[in-house]
Amino acid sequence: MISTPAGTEITPPTAPFTIAVIGGTGPQGKGLGYRFARGGHTVVFGSRSAEKGEAVAEEVAARLDGVAGAGTVSGAANADAAAQADVVLLAVPWDGHDELVASLPLAGKVVISCVNPLGFDKRGAYGLVVDAGEGSAAETAQRLAPEAVVVGAFHNVSAVTLWEHDGFLDEDILVVGDSVAAKGVAIELCASVNGRQGIDAGKLRLARQLEPWTAVLISINRKYKIHSSIKITGFDH
Amino acid sequence: MISTPAGTEITPPTAPFTIAVIGGTGPQGKGLGYRFARGGHTVVFGSRSAEKGEAVAEEVAARLDGVAGAGTVSGAANADAAAQADVVLLAVPWDGHDELVASLPLAGKVVISCVNPLGFDKRGAYGLVVDAGEGSAAETAQRLAPEAVVVGAFHNVSAVTLWEHDGFLDEDILVVGDSVAAKGVAIELCASVNGRQGIDAGKLRLARQLEPWTAVLISINRKYKIHSSIKITGFDH
Repeated sequence: MISTPAGTEITPPTAPFTIAVIGGTGPQGKGLGYRFARGGHTVVFGSRSAEKGEAVAEEVAARLDGVAGAGTVSGAANADAAAQADVVLLAVPWDGHDELVASLPLAGKVVISCVNPLGFDKRGAYGLVVDAGEGSAAETAQRLAPEAVVVGAFHNVSAVTLWEHDGFLDEDILVVGDSVAAKGVAIELCASVNGRQGIDAGKLRLARQLEPWTAVLISINRKYKIHSSIKITGFDH
Repeated sequence: MISTPAGTEITPPTAPFTIAVIGGTGPQGKGLGYRFARGGHTVVFGSRSAEKGEAVAEEVAARLDGVAGAGTVSGAANADAAAQADVVLLAVPWDGHDELVASLPLAGKVVISCVNPLGFDKRGAYGLVVDAGEGSAAETAQRLAPEAVVVGAFHNVSAVTLWEHDGFLDEDILVVGDSVAAKGVAIELCASVNGRQGIDAGKLRLARQLEPWTAVLISINRKYKIHSSIKITGFDH
């Protein structure tokens, strides 16, 4: 059982999962939802309106047509999507994040945040300071949804590569969280993206590092005209 | 010419460099200094006492005995080491960093900070908040030495691997800074460590991301019993 900060307990969901992608019409949400469905999970694309969620679901379904073992996809309004799922992926902009998360029925669910609080100015991308440096989007979501269990993952995956490439991605995916069982859900989902399990990178507070790291990758992308991500070295020695 | 925040100008040094390693007796400083000397640069290992710096220099010199093209190494008290060098590597603990940096003759020099402000508690390693999230060790050094130009690099290199392995490291090294010419010095120095140039990861403020990223790697190291670092993917597509 997974204990939540509110003291409630959640039975860890087992694969294949039913995953609501909140913000499923954005590039990160659409790309990850596509990959999860391709990996055999059921995916509900959430959006502000059910119609927009359904439109993305149709686009993804067309892309998955004929892919053996693919899961089913559908669309719904964000809150309805969350209500149907055992795993909820938050793939929403940081601007408006708190209000949206507070409006969702997240109690009893495993919530994965890939939200990156970033700013942009004439010097490029940078990490926004959350709670005077003592917080992150993932920790904020956990505070707003104390009867859910929140993990952080998929922050640094290139949205372009998720959608435009068919093969598994080369990069590593880091997962942080305070519940090993909840991290296990995200770690297993990683296999739909890169063909191997995600890396357990520690406690939820390390989302403070994973989220703004995306600013570094954006900076590298602009300089070198690539779609960068990261790999962790040292596993083969 | 490199313009400093104080409005002075620095002529970019040319390789081979004379590099002072401040904190040269620590594992990161010793390992990087060894690699730089192996790569043909002159290295002065600085320490609180000249004797300790000299002892490390002797240890490194013994290691380099017979290595073709290696630079010369020596030891000195930190301030004396800085005074002799055109490039100064700050490889000191965050605790006491400000007082030490303020005491060094850094005007007119290219300064490379690999300082990681980290904390450790029973939940593992975490990034310390610098200037309420709006600062970093590298930016602090730049503020303390306005007639120097500071870049950040070598934050995430494993000290163990630097010293214990002889071959080039597999990982990528990220360099941040507000002066392209100063970054070029660090980027060139990377070749002594991994056999290729470092990656220009953007402006100095992104040191806020590179420095605490080391907490993520430490967390991975503890979980998987490895010496991890990072590679940037996307360069080959």
